[in-house]
Amino acid sequence: MDIQDLAGGRIQTGERRALARAITLVESGRADHRAQAAELLDLLKPAGRQALRIGLSGTPPGVGKSTFIEAFGMHLIALGLRVAVLAVDPSSARSGGSILGDKTRMESLSREKNAFIRPPSPSQAQMGGVARRTREAVALCEAAGGFDVVLIETVGVGQSETVVAEMSDLFLLLIAPAGGDELQGVKRGIMEIADLILVNKADGALKDTATRTCADYAGALRLLRKRPQDPPEGFPPKALTVSAVTEDGLEKAWSEMQALTDWRRENGHWDARRSGQARHWFEEEVRLRLLAALDKPAARAALTALGADVAGGGAMSPPSQAAEQMLDLLGAAQAG
Amino acid sequence: MDIQDLAGGRIQTGERRALARAITLVESGRADHRAQAAELLDLLKPAGRQALRIGLSGTPPGVGKSTFIEAFGMHLIALGLRVAVLAVDPSSARSGGSILGDKTRMESLSREKNAFIRPPSPSQAQMGGVARRTREAVALCEAAGGFDVVLIETVGVGQSETVVAEMSDLFLLLIAPAGGDELQGVKRGIMEIADLILVNKADGALKDTATRTCADYAGALRLLRKRPQDPPEGFPPKALTVSAVTEDGLEKAWSEMQALTDWRRENGHWDARRSGQARHWFEEEVRLRLLAALDKPAARAALTALGADVAGGGAMSPPSQAAEQMLDLLGAAQAG
Repeated sequence: MDIQDLAGGRIQTGERRALARAITLVESGRADHRAQAAELLDLLKPAGRQALRIGLSGTPPGVGKSTFIEAFGMHLIALGLRVAVLAVDPSSARSGGSILGDKTRMESLSREKNAFIRPPSPSQAQMGGVARRTREAVALCEAAGGFDVVLIETVGVGQSETVVAEMSDLFLLLIAPAGGDELQGVKRGIMEIADLILVNKADGALKDTATRTCADYAGALRLLRKRPQDPPEGFPPKALTVSAVTEDGLEKAWSEMQALTDWRRENGHWDARRSGQARHWFEEEVRLRLLAALDKPAARAALTALGADVAGGGAMSPPSQAAEQMLDLLGAAQAG
Repeated sequence: MDIQDLAGGRIQTGERRALARAITLVESGRADHRAQAAELLDLLKPAGRQALRIGLSGTPPGVGKSTFIEAFGMHLIALGLRVAVLAVDPSSARSGGSILGDKTRMESLSREKNAFIRPPSPSQAQMGGVARRTREAVALCEAAGGFDVVLIETVGVGQSETVVAEMSDLFLLLIAPAGGDELQGVKRGIMEIADLILVNKADGALKDTATRTCADYAGALRLLRKRPQDPPEGFPPKALTVSAVTEDGLEKAWSEMQALTDWRRENGHWDARRSGQARHWFEEEVRLRLLAALDKPAARAALTALGADVAGGGAMSPPSQAAEQMLDLLGAAQAG
């Protein structure tokens, strides 16, 4: 693959096939592909465009996340914006994703020339590897001439909320209309990272419930937090109702996202968040590279041999002695 | 703390306070505590008792997990068994856990002298650290003279299902009665690790729905899998209804868990699973120790300095050059 060619023009003019090929490169586990991916990202860096990166998580699973992304994405495209949709699915490492396939998801959006949808691809990578390649895919979409909004959705069982929040400018939490009992189900951890809560399905018979749920969450958010990046009370609202079906509330939701973004830009929080994220990903990169010592053939062989010893010897106590021996081997290999 | 004394008698006679102190030790981030914890676990190893380790996850959040654990735990205690309950909560790293506290959870169970309940404790640890300390706490409960069942529940947003499955002999998934629409919400990944699905709330108005949901899941499980550790078709059933309120189905659920466990013991799967887990935790231990290189003062200082550079320089591309520099520094420190 000609990295210079890819970086020099085709990605930056927004050619979707070139972008897809570049993302395949960052998703690869092969050492030569990783080197090419690093080169590509370095070449694209000077372009320096900033898209609005929106993280999106939904709970419970039936909340209608795909339908929302489709409706919201079409709304943005009607406004003349270009939209990329990526997904972080740690469970795909084991299983290839959710029971229902991605084929019928976001049918209208996927036909739009100003949209780019990348389904999560199966992988053997650990969470750290999944996070790295998604973050790099986000950077590619951002640099790929013309994407204004990059939506990063969390999919599957996993620690993906925190990971997605660490690569987003804004984090949306989509929830379903529900009684007060179920409010306890949404964990404080996810409430703390959400910048805006959208209560979906605010239509038909559920409309009143959605309005009440929205008020409950707005109240809970007021009690829970005052983060530096939160604007003054009441501006913009922290919880809104939307309907992906009737499209009610989408315009309001988008204008509030813009208002929040503008406020953060003006008050230094946008830059602070991006800087903090760069630091975080640098540290993650260091960890991944340290662990790469285990990928060398000699290390793999030693790990397998010691692992067989441990597996044969009884599973009760932590296999700390074998681990110590492994570390000694790695140290000797590095020094030698 | 006198580790010999702790290991020699007090934990092994099932003294709950000694066990609690030992768990506090494995939960500590301090280097001297970690060394003591390793010593303690090595000393306890020869005892070699095996409890039944049951992992438990519930979805959606309102499924009634605490109520189920309380009722199921009391059922086991009435049978003369000793029960420990531990939790894996990766979100506690950030927030200290769920909105509602643990204080009123499992009120009856916590008063039983044959029960030991350890709430998740807040921590700054990453998932790897959280997993290690829970696994070590499980080993302590197992070695702590007399626990027959160790229940390990997943709490919070997180990758905790896989982590808990990796330290359990049996993995239970507790779900709520629901229409067919919501079946899609349970991810294939979690279905694949579940050994038994329990549909809770099979009482009152929800009883019929629960029965239908149970049949749906049994069907889905038949389509999804045939793992080596799954017994022949129909024995034992893969999905059952229970009610934590009326206690209907608890006896049946427990007898099916025992039947499955017996089948696995007789067919070599129990030992194979424990061996595989020992190998897995050995590899995790190696990773944690490799990453411990970053905890040394000089490494921390370098990481902070390079991180500040990266944060100041723009957040677009992966900070791969800084990471490379960091690795060079660590290599030089190790070689020198």
